[in-house]
Amino acid sequence: MAALAGVAASPGLGIGTVMVIAEPCLAYEVVEVTDAEAEKSRLHGAIEAFSALTREKAEVVRERVGDAEAAILEGHVLMISDPFMVAEMDNLIDGGQCAEAALDTVCETFAVMFEAADDDLTRQRAADVRDIKSGVLCQLLGVREVDVSRVPRGTVLVTHDLVPSMTAGLDRDNVVGIVTETGGMTSHSAILARALEIPAVLAVPDAVRKLPEGAQVIVDGGEGAVAVAPDEAELAAARVRQEALRREKEALQRFVGKKTVTADGCQVELFGNIGSVEDARAVVDNDGEGVGLFRTEFLFMDGGAMPTEEEQFRAYQQAALIMKGRPVIIRTLDIGGDKDIPYLGLEKEDNPFMGFRAIRYCLAREDVFRTQLRALLRASAFGDVRIMVPLVTGVEELRQVRALIRRYADEFSREGVACNKDVPVGVMIETPAAALMADALAAEADFFSIGTNDLTGYTMAVDRGNDRVRYLYSAFNPAVLRSIRSVIAAGTAAGIPVGMCGEAAADPLLIPLWISFGLTEYSVGPASILATRAAIAGWNHEEARALAEAVMGAVTPDAVLDLLKAAAR
Amino acid sequence: MAALAGVAASPGLGIGTVMVIAEPCLAYEVVEVTDAEAEKSRLHGAIEAFSALTREKAEVVRERVGDAEAAILEGHVLMISDPFMVAEMDNLIDGGQCAEAALDTVCETFAVMFEAADDDLTRQRAADVRDIKSGVLCQLLGVREVDVSRVPRGTVLVTHDLVPSMTAGLDRDNVVGIVTETGGMTSHSAILARALEIPAVLAVPDAVRKLPEGAQVIVDGGEGAVAVAPDEAELAAARVRQEALRREKEALQRFVGKKTVTADGCQVELFGNIGSVEDARAVVDNDGEGVGLFRTEFLFMDGGAMPTEEEQFRAYQQAALIMKGRPVIIRTLDIGGDKDIPYLGLEKEDNPFMGFRAIRYCLAREDVFRTQLRALLRASAFGDVRIMVPLVTGVEELRQVRALIRRYADEFSREGVACNKDVPVGVMIETPAAALMADALAAEADFFSIGTNDLTGYTMAVDRGNDRVRYLYSAFNPAVLRSIRSVIAAGTAAGIPVGMCGEAAADPLLIPLWISFGLTEYSVGPASILATRAAIAGWNHEEARALAEAVMGAVTPDAVLDLLKAAAR
Repeated sequence: MAALAGVAASPGLGIGTVMVIAEPCLAYEVVEVTDAEAEKSRLHGAIEAFSALTREKAEVVRERVGDAEAAILEGHVLMISDPFMVAEMDNLIDGGQCAEAALDTVCETFAVMFEAADDDLTRQRAADVRDIKSGVLCQLLGVREVDVSRVPRGTVLVTHDLVPSMTAGLDRDNVVGIVTETGGMTSHSAILARALEIPAVLAVPDAVRKLPEGAQVIVDGGEGAVAVAPDEAELAAARVRQEALRREKEALQRFVGKKTVTADGCQVELFGNIGSVEDARAVVDNDGEGVGLFRTEFLFMDGGAMPTEEEQFRAYQQAALIMKGRPVIIRTLDIGGDKDIPYLGLEKEDNPFMGFRAIRYCLAREDVFRTQLRALLRASAFGDVRIMVPLVTGVEELRQVRALIRRYADEFSREGVACNKDVPVGVMIETPAAALMADALAAEADFFSIGTNDLTGYTMAVDRGNDRVRYLYSAFNPAVLRSIRSVIAAGTAAGIPVGMCGEAAADPLLIPLWISFGLTEYSVGPASILATRAAIAGWNHEEARALAEAVMGAVTPDAVLDLLKAAAR
Repeated sequence: MAALAGVAASPGLGIGTVMVIAEPCLAYEVVEVTDAEAEKSRLHGAIEAFSALTREKAEVVRERVGDAEAAILEGHVLMISDPFMVAEMDNLIDGGQCAEAALDTVCETFAVMFEAADDDLTRQRAADVRDIKSGVLCQLLGVREVDVSRVPRGTVLVTHDLVPSMTAGLDRDNVVGIVTETGGMTSHSAILARALEIPAVLAVPDAVRKLPEGAQVIVDGGEGAVAVAPDEAELAAARVRQEALRREKEALQRFVGKKTVTADGCQVELFGNIGSVEDARAVVDNDGEGVGLFRTEFLFMDGGAMPTEEEQFRAYQQAALIMKGRPVIIRTLDIGGDKDIPYLGLEKEDNPFMGFRAIRYCLAREDVFRTQLRALLRASAFGDVRIMVPLVTGVEELRQVRALIRRYADEFSREGVACNKDVPVGVMIETPAAALMADALAAEADFFSIGTNDLTGYTMAVDRGNDRVRYLYSAFNPAVLRSIRSVIAAGTAAGIPVGMCGEAAADPLLIPLWISFGLTEYSVGPASILATRAAIAGWNHEEARALAEAVMGAVTPDAVLDLLKAAAR
């Protein structure tokens, strides 16, 4: 059995038959135009027809998938309605070009411009523009687009790029897997596949050539692997795993609507990590008890300009309303490091992880920070909004943030704008300095949330994105565990809640340690909420403490892992 | 009074009169050569005369300054004796060029090639080649070179670039200050000025134009400032400071030959940090009691290829012999991060400080590490050589290094080569992980040395080379002090010596903290040895402990600094 590797973009195991979606043939003949007005009418008609069709598709997607995915298609309508873009095409037609050539030239110009950008999100727009171009060309040429809503049950879609316009009819009843040659974790294809819970492996080189129409394949979206023409034994094994995954998922359903308690009845909080308002709905759908980490930088990455106070307020307010009074911990802008936003004009740094990022940036750019803090304060009138400060290294940064919040709250109070002037302000513990100063920070913070990802990186002095040294990056390293233990102890001693919002919060192997250390809040990806509740229910304090005592005596990550694996349940 | 700013390359205060050293006029007429053999003879004669003169200068420099500085000039003789270089010139003369043009073309080709290099040391070679070119041109043209040995007392030399050939007669009896338009901390000018203890400010833009011949100036080599035409009050103030500096230095002489003891009579060790064999002599000259940090990467940076086992052995052996049985702690290769060595072919990384460097590199490149460890083992037969491992994050790395040392020691034992198979192996504590695991590391290491520079950077998650965030980089940060305190406590509990080799070891404000924490070894720059001995002598344990108690209760770096300054003596 041959196996192809790609990006593990949407988890799950799909067994099915390959259907290759070739892109429609959109070759056109270049002709010289004499009646420019007639040709422009032809173009405008095609654009209108394309817009109408795309709006229809957006409605279907909204029902079947969700608002965010529909918004992508609506964005296409907005883009092609841009008077500047159409005026450019009209100009070219006035100069003698045909509608197809004018459309092609203008769209490619924009696409190439977007492709040159430094960030994935702007580059993604190049795909959007080309998708629009294809859609309008279809109208001009009378070509019918692919309709994936009609594919037979058990289909694995294989295509160069799953463009949004293709996905209107996508349905998990028919499509059991998706394989593409392009796209990453943040591409539309990946977002859509996860939203529909269809296993997907993206960026598989030469997938269209290597996966022939009609071939049977196993798409392992968790591992990022596609097995081609599996034999009977392999198919049987895959079905067993598929069934196990299904049963596991089903078994978790008994935790829906339950409190999150240890086996000996101690209740903790179980929140979800989100990056958008839509994600907040996923937290509710997965029975999360609040939002433990709202990553606001995605609001800043989506557009080409800084979101206004009003735009930010709407997003925070909506998240608060969706959570209906349950806690919503919103992290202030955490850019820099590996997260760039072109319009903020950050300079290139030699060691961006140890550079001008997160709270360092915000305290230096009071204009940016003021807009966000005011939006957060206004949203605080609509629910249990809490503010979390990233990359703190000492009490001075926390004091500065508190002083700003006080000042803006006073402004609102004078203006008669509603806000919670006692909005809780917490610290994300993710630098070794913050961990070392946890007692001092606990005396001035309303809560802690341990960011295990960065804390591990800084503690080990390892960039986890660097292949040569990633072997040292591990939350199982005893140094990292000691640091986490002392942070929780300091927070507990001060009587403030201590949560965790890094990936380690959802690791069932580590959960007994967190229980024994006294963690009071777990914030995990929405899809991991029920599994985390189940894992917590599996441990009582006495057993967790006995295990932690053994583990904390180990001095190597391997020894830690061996002990935790031996105790896993 | 106008003041010019530049690189503070050699400390001290010089008050004197500007003498601008213009470069000699070396313009030549290009003529076509008919008798190529005669022209080649003329070139070879000039090269011989240049070499003889340069060798003479090297002898003078050796007596007045030292071996390392003389070696620079001897390097010029070696370079111009390269048969390849001369053959290239001969070829050009055979083609009809005159000797001057042939020399010029070949030297410039090499200079441009060196200038294109990524590292300072190779770029420095471009200056060497141009210096050689000027020297040989002088011989060809019959131009007499500048002779700085004849300048009057109280001269401040101002020149575009202080090339090594100019400096043969340089003497601190006559020259009280040096100002140049080019060069950095590692340039020959800087090294020479520090060796001669002449205050120097380098890289002052337009210095030659802005500092007119005969003007009175104050060269502040500690601050990197040149004051032009000071008034009487300013001159008087400068003389007072100069006298204070002189008296301070003189006062330190009473610590020569003394043990390093606290005021209540507890003895500690006071070592020097070195980067070369020459530096070891400076440690002896400054009455250091050993070498606390031999940075071996300089051996690797000097040449264009990896130093052989024999070359490394000679360097380590010489350092051991110079120290006559006193401890010599040699750090294994610490490259990567901000230290690149072109021939090692390190890949560019997004966050080099958190990347493939130091022990991570060495454990992955057993060929490189084997050569160094074998050289260290052989040198261990000639003194109290100890091996220190940089950037350790856990016991596994230490175990791997020990296993390699054991294996190579066994090889030597079979081959009958002398070495100390029980050579002490210590850990440089400079990552938060190592600090957190200090008890476990202390159980397996023979000694600790705290590298405060990197430990501060990683603890604060700050690249100290980054202007935007350097404000957070401070050894006075309470998080850093807590980390250091716990490391010293862990080492003390395990009964191993704990030293410190970062810049903080020589900071008189911090020394009472180190005394109270129980630091047993201080390793500082050779020029700071006596001042550090004096600072240690100023504190008894009781006072140091009382101060430390107050300081460790502070939660901000400003509060720490205020307390330490108030207690300074």
